[in-house]
Amino acid sequence: MYKLIVSIFLLLSIALHAEDGSRLWLRLGAGSGARVTTPGRTATIDVAAREIKAHWRGGNVTLAYNRKKAEDVSAEAFSITGDARTGVTISSKSDRGLLYGAYALLRLQATGRDTGTIAMTEAPAFERRILNHWDNMDGSIERGYAGRSLWKWEELPTLSPRYEAYARANASIGINGTVLNNVNANPTVLTADCLAKVKALADAFRPYGLRVYLSVNFNAPKSIGGLTTADPLDSQVKRWWNDKADEIYALVPDFGGFLVKANSEGQAGPQDYGRTHADGANMLADALAKHGGIIMWRAFVYAPSTDDRAKQAYLEFMPLDGQFRDNVIIQIKNGPVDFQPREAFSPLFGSLRQTQSMIEFQITQEYLGHSNHLVFLAPLFKETLDSETFRDGDGSTVANVTNGRAGRTRVTAIAGVANTGDSANWCGHHFAQANWYAFGRLAWNCNLSAGEIADEWIRQTFTDRDEFLVPVREMMCSSRETCVDYMMPLGLHHAFSFNEHYGPEPWGNLPRGRADWNPVYYHRADTGGIGFDRTRRGSDAVSQYNEPLRDELDDVRRCPENLLLWFHRVRWDFRMKNGRTLWENLCYRYDAGLQQARAYQMQWDRLQHMVDEERFKAVQRKLMIQTRDAQWWKEACLLYFQTFSRMPIPFDIERPTNTLEDIKKMNLRKITY
Amino acid sequence: MYKLIVSIFLLLSIALHAEDGSRLWLRLGAGSGARVTTPGRTATIDVAAREIKAHWRGGNVTLAYNRKKAEDVSAEAFSITGDARTGVTISSKSDRGLLYGAYALLRLQATGRDTGTIAMTEAPAFERRILNHWDNMDGSIERGYAGRSLWKWEELPTLSPRYEAYARANASIGINGTVLNNVNANPTVLTADCLAKVKALADAFRPYGLRVYLSVNFNAPKSIGGLTTADPLDSQVKRWWNDKADEIYALVPDFGGFLVKANSEGQAGPQDYGRTHADGANMLADALAKHGGIIMWRAFVYAPSTDDRAKQAYLEFMPLDGQFRDNVIIQIKNGPVDFQPREAFSPLFGSLRQTQSMIEFQITQEYLGHSNHLVFLAPLFKETLDSETFRDGDGSTVANVTNGRAGRTRVTAIAGVANTGDSANWCGHHFAQANWYAFGRLAWNCNLSAGEIADEWIRQTFTDRDEFLVPVREMMCSSRETCVDYMMPLGLHHAFSFNEHYGPEPWGNLPRGRADWNPVYYHRADTGGIGFDRTRRGSDAVSQYNEPLRDELDDVRRCPENLLLWFHRVRWDFRMKNGRTLWENLCYRYDAGLQQARAYQMQWDRLQHMVDEERFKAVQRKLMIQTRDAQWWKEACLLYFQTFSRMPIPFDIERPTNTLEDIKKMNLRKITY
Repeated sequence: MYKLIVSIFLLLSIALHAEDGSRLWLRLGAGSGARVTTPGRTATIDVAAREIKAHWRGGNVTLAYNRKKAEDVSAEAFSITGDARTGVTISSKSDRGLLYGAYALLRLQATGRDTGTIAMTEAPAFERRILNHWDNMDGSIERGYAGRSLWKWEELPTLSPRYEAYARANASIGINGTVLNNVNANPTVLTADCLAKVKALADAFRPYGLRVYLSVNFNAPKSIGGLTTADPLDSQVKRWWNDKADEIYALVPDFGGFLVKANSEGQAGPQDYGRTHADGANMLADALAKHGGIIMWRAFVYAPSTDDRAKQAYLEFMPLDGQFRDNVIIQIKNGPVDFQPREAFSPLFGSLRQTQSMIEFQITQEYLGHSNHLVFLAPLFKETLDSETFRDGDGSTVANVTNGRAGRTRVTAIAGVANTGDSANWCGHHFAQANWYAFGRLAWNCNLSAGEIADEWIRQTFTDRDEFLVPVREMMCSSRETCVDYMMPLGLHHAFSFNEHYGPEPWGNLPRGRADWNPVYYHRADTGGIGFDRTRRGSDAVSQYNEPLRDELDDVRRCPENLLLWFHRVRWDFRMKNGRTLWENLCYRYDAGLQQARAYQMQWDRLQHMVDEERFKAVQRKLMIQTRDAQWWKEACLLYFQTFSRMPIPFDIERPTNTLEDIKKMNLRKITY
Repeated sequence: MYKLIVSIFLLLSIALHAEDGSRLWLRLGAGSGARVTTPGRTATIDVAAREIKAHWRGGNVTLAYNRKKAEDVSAEAFSITGDARTGVTISSKSDRGLLYGAYALLRLQATGRDTGTIAMTEAPAFERRILNHWDNMDGSIERGYAGRSLWKWEELPTLSPRYEAYARANASIGINGTVLNNVNANPTVLTADCLAKVKALADAFRPYGLRVYLSVNFNAPKSIGGLTTADPLDSQVKRWWNDKADEIYALVPDFGGFLVKANSEGQAGPQDYGRTHADGANMLADALAKHGGIIMWRAFVYAPSTDDRAKQAYLEFMPLDGQFRDNVIIQIKNGPVDFQPREAFSPLFGSLRQTQSMIEFQITQEYLGHSNHLVFLAPLFKETLDSETFRDGDGSTVANVTNGRAGRTRVTAIAGVANTGDSANWCGHHFAQANWYAFGRLAWNCNLSAGEIADEWIRQTFTDRDEFLVPVREMMCSSRETCVDYMMPLGLHHAFSFNEHYGPEPWGNLPRGRADWNPVYYHRADTGGIGFDRTRRGSDAVSQYNEPLRDELDDVRRCPENLLLWFHRVRWDFRMKNGRTLWENLCYRYDAGLQQARAYQMQWDRLQHMVDEERFKAVQRKLMIQTRDAQWWKEACLLYFQTFSRMPIPFDIERPTNTLEDIKKMNLRKITY
């Protein structure tokens, strides 16, 4: 009996100390008993006070409302002033601001910047900072690589502690909205049964300042409403949506709004009834307007067409510019194709002038090695946000166009497709947590650099020791470029295996199905050269960009070389700036990607003594897979493209270890990790 | 019709010029019409004259018998004298010598040494230079990696041109004997039906100086003779073998003799009847003596025993030293275990004093990557031949002990287990042909260096251009050490996967079956160290060697480091001569093997423009496999041994790309090449 008790105790203590990544970046130590003064009690203030008491190791803390009426100060802005040792005051106009201030204070502590005088004021770059979950009602997740959905629909409205942990994690990095369900939306989410479950989640999230949104199926009035049409101009349809909005807001008074994927990839939409995207979006917007809800209408549409797919969202939406209601915002993917390792930014950002737009990033790594590859996405996010659109002259970056700095908009928002699931470490790969973190931090402050974000995350998630911090930060910050190198350098895109978007399949050319689902559509390699001609002489996608960018992209000598094959078709012997041919550069880039992946393994192994065994081994194993995959990509792409270039792989490059025929037989379904 | 004829013509000309490797090193050009004078006509002289006429591009050639009666000149010795342009004379005591002289002359031409005065005299190092075919009667080949057996028993005695091509290839490098069937002998080969087929082969081979031998099953008197015993002292048994010998010699007057594997790995033998190996061998020897036949009695025996397997052949045969007939020769594998990438030489060579011995090499790469790895075996053959046994003081190398220079023996012989099969290129890997070639050349002249043999072979098989010759010779000559590095460096041995002996399985430890079939028996790794202690404090195998070698091997500081773990068990932190620990050295050696394999790929690819496409691609693909396998070996062994060493793999070494658990799931049966 005694033995049994000891055994149970041992098991429990192992379980309690298991470094399974479940604590994310919130590895906060115990507080030292500081007194917390609050301006009253609300659920949100209670959370803020509880977090400080539990974890703050400095002087007393005062939470106070900032009563300044200045219109231009966001309700969520906060200040922290005082001295860490003797006492600090966190002030804001709102409870949410106080909560964000509390997490900011704890972050200062966790990153070692909690010494002496503190005087910080922060306001969010975007008002709505939203995760999009592509979670299906059956518990699966489209493009999810971290287990099953967090939402246990069959158990709801009964709650589990995981929901609060989720809301807390988001609050700690400033995320204030979550779209619960997949944009390929199951209409049943709008049934009364389901809405009761949605309400339970909204109630659980509310203390953490996290508002709930839903993806809706445009055909819901027919499929669950019993109507014979979903025509947006039909009065019965309008009434159905109005009633549905009232029903939702009765349950969830702070409901955020709808996300809509319409007339895209088989989804229903207003065009089914001869109406425009504007007709559809505005009808829904009218239903939500009186409640303060918004419509996020996705621009990711492309029709079966012979025109360049990269041009289609622009062609579809530009004629509608100015026709949308004030509470409609067009949600545009960062690039014009589909979340590739590198894309040019979507030209819609620089073109819509009378329509609000927001950016949609993908945090889940659909095209960046799933949760097997260490790819830190902050550099990708930053690259798009910092892209100059020249819409209103200099300074019209994608960030400024969408956050209101370049031309005021009523609603500002930013979305990221979540990488969470019910696996213990939330994201599948311990380092994928950093992408969730980076999205939240950039949505709050898009001026942070990738390095600063990595630095913060490492200090909180692992350790602040320089011997660990410096090399891991370097690894993270170079990792996206490494992935581009071993997958698709120099502007190549969409060379992925069909559907699973994991391994290489540059030869992909399914006889049935749409041309623009095939890799060969994008790289267009033949013995004459490689690349998609999007210049004026080609598809003319360059003309969707503003001058002077248009001319620069159009000129093969001035186009950034990392987008060369995105915009240009060039000969294999085209001379690049380093004097080598395109073919040689392609070879060296692919090999550099592989060698970098190997270098990450080497780097990680050197750090073993500074990491707990559980996370060390898990990351070590993922890095093994990443290196194998990098080699797979390099060999597949070089051997395939070589059949056209007909040039040798430069002889100082490590040789392929498989023939092209061998590689064509491989795919994700045959590889077991 | 015209089109059809043209097509057939095109196909034929492609087929005729296909570089499928079928011509081996005999890529002789057309002759220039030299006149050949012969001392008469025999089948063998006809071959010699025909080869010279067809391929010699110098002056006229005279074949002449050398009538000198000197006893010490081998019948097969020959001289070539004269001037390549104006005329040369080949002389020998025998037709076979003239034939070898003819091939030597053509080799001078093919290797670019046919200019000006020629004055060469050669005599073979070993009298009987024999291939052992482990070919089964059903057409399969034990440890064969080049297709099915060359012998089509179901077609014989009908002949195919391949038989003559086989005999010619052997003659061209001086091989004068062939054991047709597997040492695990099917007794039916001795039936009258089968012997008629054997006779057909012997007749086909005879013009090329190639004599036929057979492996016999010791139980044949019972299994095909209808006797109730195979006891070697039984008079009926003796009579049966005598009659069988008479029957064979009536069909094949120059029959070479029997090869016997007895009381080994389940084969029958004299011990089944309480008799000794000597009793068995002598009985058979008596049956063949009057016909001039010999018995090659294999020393590869090991009983299920707790004693060190490496000691067993010695323990079994030393008590019998001096008890064997003059026409018995003990056939001893080069090492005391089993054809490992590196073994110490068998101590029997230095110990048998009154018994003739011969060496058995394995040309087929059972333990050296099958026909997938480029491993040139001349360095391995040379290493054993040149090993100093100290049997009779300095100069008693294994070569000299077996070829009669150190103490005259009546019969001298050398055997190599063939790597041939019915695949177009004979050996599976184009470079495996070089091992057949090297065996023949060393059996003739064991003073040739590995580099000289590689040089000859490359010039004849590919090209004599220095840009090709120099790097390929370097690749060949380093390849065996490379293989040792990535498979089993520092004296490790037998870490192979069970039965197929291809991939790594250092963890192999089958619960049933004999201990000495398991890799763990040989490496003995645990947290205390690694290696087999064969010193005086251990199994005392060192005492089977002569002084001063015995003392040297016994001393961990003097034992050659490339055999360290063969003779010693050492701690993981044992300091080696380079100052690094054993563990570190193990890691660097495994990695060096992998990097060398990669370097071979790089080297071969650079030579593409100097090789026909067919052979270039075939070798390129094999080198890919070799690199993958090298990585597999490195990762398997280092990760497995690391579970005991508990030390990190030095951080400047490329990291494994699989976990040990992943690797344990791999094996040859799951890998498709």
